[in-house]
Amino acid sequence: MSSNRREFLTGSLIAGTACLAGRSRTVAAAEPSSGTIPPGSVILFQGDSITDTRRSRETAQTPNVRSTLGSGYAWMAASQLLVDHSKSDLKIFNRGISGNKVPDLAERWDADCLELKPDLLSILIGVNDYWHRRNGRYDGTLKDYETGYRALLERTRKALPNVRLVLCEPFALKCGKVDDTWFPDLAGYRAVARKMSEEFKTTFVPFQQMFDRAVAYAEPAEWAADGVHPSPSGAALMAHEWQRCVLGMSS
Amino acid sequence: MSSNRREFLTGSLIAGTACLAGRSRTVAAAEPSSGTIPPGSVILFQGDSITDTRRSRETAQTPNVRSTLGSGYAWMAASQLLVDHSKSDLKIFNRGISGNKVPDLAERWDADCLELKPDLLSILIGVNDYWHRRNGRYDGTLKDYETGYRALLERTRKALPNVRLVLCEPFALKCGKVDDTWFPDLAGYRAVARKMSEEFKTTFVPFQQMFDRAVAYAEPAEWAADGVHPSPSGAALMAHEWQRCVLGMSS
Repeated sequence: MSSNRREFLTGSLIAGTACLAGRSRTVAAAEPSSGTIPPGSVILFQGDSITDTRRSRETAQTPNVRSTLGSGYAWMAASQLLVDHSKSDLKIFNRGISGNKVPDLAERWDADCLELKPDLLSILIGVNDYWHRRNGRYDGTLKDYETGYRALLERTRKALPNVRLVLCEPFALKCGKVDDTWFPDLAGYRAVARKMSEEFKTTFVPFQQMFDRAVAYAEPAEWAADGVHPSPSGAALMAHEWQRCVLGMSS
Repeated sequence: MSSNRREFLTGSLIAGTACLAGRSRTVAAAEPSSGTIPPGSVILFQGDSITDTRRSRETAQTPNVRSTLGSGYAWMAASQLLVDHSKSDLKIFNRGISGNKVPDLAERWDADCLELKPDLLSILIGVNDYWHRRNGRYDGTLKDYETGYRALLERTRKALPNVRLVLCEPFALKCGKVDDTWFPDLAGYRAVARKMSEEFKTTFVPFQQMFDRAVAYAEPAEWAADGVHPSPSGAALMAHEWQRCVLGMSS
């Protein structure tokens, strides 16, 4: 049993450290601070439709309720945080907007991010930067994604020097609207997100890697029918991965 | 910040130890073994419709796939475990059957539990023992629930002396088919489940306590439209609570 347990713990360690980009695995694993969110923290989820999930615009100023938080991974992760820490006075918002790309975030960043003064800011952006270019609705290149994302993060760090940043990996599953031809190009966007996480020393949430493992247990369409927008099972898996990376969960 | 952090960690400790019945909080918090599932483990979810969630009977012998595991908390917890530990050779089954009560589990226990030789057995049973008596479809009393549950667990421990037991708290939300008149009586069934957890020194998953906190963030019907059967958000919250209790997650 003891050798089994050793094996198991080794497995956990490897999975856990994949959440941190730009730090050596040994150092990352030893950092206890990755596992804490202080009481009173303001937490903001930002992104596109995968974050938006039909959240109400009417209650956008009211933290911690389902209408504000939508029905996807952000809601699931938030509700789990709130239930676990019901006395910690967390204030959790979602300001994802369907169809958004990096330049759309930049346009509304003052009102929808900086003014909220988040202590923890989680961003999932990139699939539309690729997809809308692919289908001719947008001219921006991979280079524009990188330049714009870096500028957004610099602006954020300047306005909110103590904000904890969590960058999420853009992803797709091979089903629905997504075929093989997506992956060589999408890999570039994933690599930029990881590079930004390294440059800005953020927590990184490797959603593509997670879904690449998940397809061993259910068809891609079970996780996201159109290949882009997660099902409830896919959103639950994302919320779990987010918590694992952000809170250093022992999984 | 350091006093904030201390507050936060205190909060986590209290939440975490609620998962263990029959042990002092101080001892429970110090037990590292609660957080591990050795590689190669066979994990079995047992229960009623809340566990069943329209799983396929055709693939019941095939572990680790969505059809076998249904679409509820068992599937979500299982898929998260499998994705986190894709190299750990876990084998996860679901044998919940809609409408089951303790005597129904007892009738099929050899085939649907003991023969699978689980290393970890998670049971959620009790709401029908109450509900079916309430609506006249069953004669069993609270005392029968206790006697039958204890006999089932004694039989399990005798056949599988090393099995790790996880007992889950039966629960209801005040909406749909559930009104105020449920709660005084259901509390008795909840207390028996907790008592069994104490007697058999198992991990305990306090789902009712969790949902009692969750209604601060969304209407009861968002968690379970009929008050009994969880929505995807409710199932995701349950999967999270199950993992928190079973793996000693730092939340």
